[in-house]
Amino acid sequence: MKLLEQAIKVKQASESLVGIDTEQLNRAIELVAEELVNQASHIIVANEMDMEHGCANGVPEARLDRLMLNKARIKDMANDVRDVAMLPDVLGKFQGFTRPNGLKVTKLTVPLGVVGMIYESRPNVTVDAAVLCLKSGNAVLLRGGKEAYHSNQAIVTVIKSALHQAGLPTDAVELVQDTSRKTAMEMMKLTQYLDLLIPRGGASLIQSVKVNATVPIIETGTGNCHIYINEEANVQMALDVLVNAKVQRPSVCNACESVVVDQSVATTLLPLIKVALEPYHVELRGCDKTVDILNIPRASVDDFYTEYNDLILSIKIVDGIDQAIAHINKHGTKHSEAIITENQAHVKKFLQLTDAACVYHNASTRFSDGSELGFGAEIGISTQKLHARGPFALEALTTYKYIIEGTGQIRK
Amino acid sequence: MKLLEQAIKVKQASESLVGIDTEQLNRAIELVAEELVNQASHIIVANEMDMEHGCANGVPEARLDRLMLNKARIKDMANDVRDVAMLPDVLGKFQGFTRPNGLKVTKLTVPLGVVGMIYESRPNVTVDAAVLCLKSGNAVLLRGGKEAYHSNQAIVTVIKSALHQAGLPTDAVELVQDTSRKTAMEMMKLTQYLDLLIPRGGASLIQSVKVNATVPIIETGTGNCHIYINEEANVQMALDVLVNAKVQRPSVCNACESVVVDQSVATTLLPLIKVALEPYHVELRGCDKTVDILNIPRASVDDFYTEYNDLILSIKIVDGIDQAIAHINKHGTKHSEAIITENQAHVKKFLQLTDAACVYHNASTRFSDGSELGFGAEIGISTQKLHARGPFALEALTTYKYIIEGTGQIRK
Repeated sequence: MKLLEQAIKVKQASESLVGIDTEQLNRAIELVAEELVNQASHIIVANEMDMEHGCANGVPEARLDRLMLNKARIKDMANDVRDVAMLPDVLGKFQGFTRPNGLKVTKLTVPLGVVGMIYESRPNVTVDAAVLCLKSGNAVLLRGGKEAYHSNQAIVTVIKSALHQAGLPTDAVELVQDTSRKTAMEMMKLTQYLDLLIPRGGASLIQSVKVNATVPIIETGTGNCHIYINEEANVQMALDVLVNAKVQRPSVCNACESVVVDQSVATTLLPLIKVALEPYHVELRGCDKTVDILNIPRASVDDFYTEYNDLILSIKIVDGIDQAIAHINKHGTKHSEAIITENQAHVKKFLQLTDAACVYHNASTRFSDGSELGFGAEIGISTQKLHARGPFALEALTTYKYIIEGTGQIRK
Repeated sequence: MKLLEQAIKVKQASESLVGIDTEQLNRAIELVAEELVNQASHIIVANEMDMEHGCANGVPEARLDRLMLNKARIKDMANDVRDVAMLPDVLGKFQGFTRPNGLKVTKLTVPLGVVGMIYESRPNVTVDAAVLCLKSGNAVLLRGGKEAYHSNQAIVTVIKSALHQAGLPTDAVELVQDTSRKTAMEMMKLTQYLDLLIPRGGASLIQSVKVNATVPIIETGTGNCHIYINEEANVQMALDVLVNAKVQRPSVCNACESVVVDQSVATTLLPLIKVALEPYHVELRGCDKTVDILNIPRASVDDFYTEYNDLILSIKIVDGIDQAIAHINKHGTKHSEAIITENQAHVKKFLQLTDAACVYHNASTRFSDGSELGFGAEIGISTQKLHARGPFALEALTTYKYIIEGTGQIRK
């Protein structure tokens, strides 16, 4: 089926979701969980096709691991789905007031309509996106990566079966059949059918969506995150936090990519950093001043703009907190930034002036995550300032409308 | 000065506005009001230059009227500015909670940073935008129309003088010197310096920004608004509301452009509509069924997609409420839509299923306006669903950040 036909179907389905009972939505979500488990063997067969293609085409092992599904992983997916059904409802909230001329005004929370999602290899995003959109009353057009095509297809078939059983339109969740880049570009411009487009994936996908989309987007997940070790840091804490933020899961967006160190403590601190990271085989690249202290390769200008998503760390020496904040605001991606210090004046300055969705004092940037912050679910981590910032979930999938009721009022 | 140099200056100014005392911001805004009145004669001299250019270049009278400034109009502008100083503060609001691992999380309202504004001829937008941005702690880069260049220049000089007196960076409000389209296009892509871009003006400006901007935008002001007269309408009320929505100020976005009438009452209602609008010289254009009843020109397909901003009205006959809603959702711009009826089931359906920022029952669409709805100020009327919908003002100029304070927490 052509993209446009699919978009029309999803749009129509979104219209029949308006005003639907939230219990029915939750029932559909629970059925998705049940059906995932019941149909696990079908999903696994489809996934094996993707895995075979992936192996044959030389897809790197880390990506194959993200792609792989087995009974245990499908059960985990189903449990996550059940958690979404249990989340508090986000629809139908309202504030009302009456104007002096008697007009009754109600500001009502409503679904966005149709959410588009462009993402890469992980098939669990298909499930997460579908149920979060349903929970918030939206229909969703999913464009997953080519690598996961058969898995996504099988998962969407399961979801549609659950929708059917719950008496909801099966077109409310559609998977784009054509995984070409050309079709993805077309999707980015479907302003008549999509109310929001969320890209999830690597920096080049995000950049392409940012430049080409005319549908409103929420930019997600590019994280060039810094740990700034101030001269008044507790050294052991600084090392523990840095190691955690760098190595605990280097491939994710809230991992640390660069450490910023005050000049006054650099000669003592840098060798300790090197020793602390050595067991994890972290490659270090330093600024001009750093390479005078440590025998490591020099970082290029590009290094300081790079989200490695790997066991590599750039090191920058600065002359005090103002330079540290300026360096971070220049090179960061407004995702997550941390200061390690015991100096309260520096804490205040850093938290106020560092321009990022999440700013930390004495903690690892790895906590920038919906479930770690207690939001119960996450669609992505927004690095833009409009609509949603930082880890976002159901509320970002809603908008509001003004309902204005009168008795014939006209404007003077 | 080049656009990029100006953008860098504004960005720097925005950084020095972070965390500034709101009293100081309000003092600056009050000084803007004072200085507008004090310097009125300078502004009028500059405005006369624009008026002369406009006359010489054949600018239509309606646009010249919008451009024109005199002492009374400047005094009104100053009063509006004082009202903004009196509005409740929007910054510094927060919600806080502590996670089981001891992390203290605070969600804090903060300014966006730098707001860009691209607009057309009215110089009062220069003042409104500047003081609303200041009130919300933002710096602003203003790109007004060529026609108002000297007026805008004089106004921004006055604002800078007020900023200086208040001890704030004068670069916090900058007017783009080069009013070429090329520079406007450049401005739409300044993602490194602008956090938000708001276009205000005609449909072609909005469309150009929508297609070309990579800076996040709030789409404003295109209003193809409908009045749907249901078969169970109070006829006199329907006529009063329609006349008001169409003729009270036809050039604005919340004016009615199209009336939708139920087939069952069309033969009695359409002649009454014609008579009611005749004194105002409203040109009528009808659908196929309408021209069987009224002797008026046939509307083209394009007519039903057109925001006339003029004394023209298209008429569409539909077979009941479902067709009415489908017609409006297809042709409308998601701005303001009204139903006139006494049938409560139809009211409920219309208010729920019509996809627009403001949906009305038995009232004129002309109330879609920040001050009419009691919001005290308005930057524009958003026709998108993200971040801000409908009339929006100060809150839409803010975002939030998460401040996360720990004692060395790392992720397990």
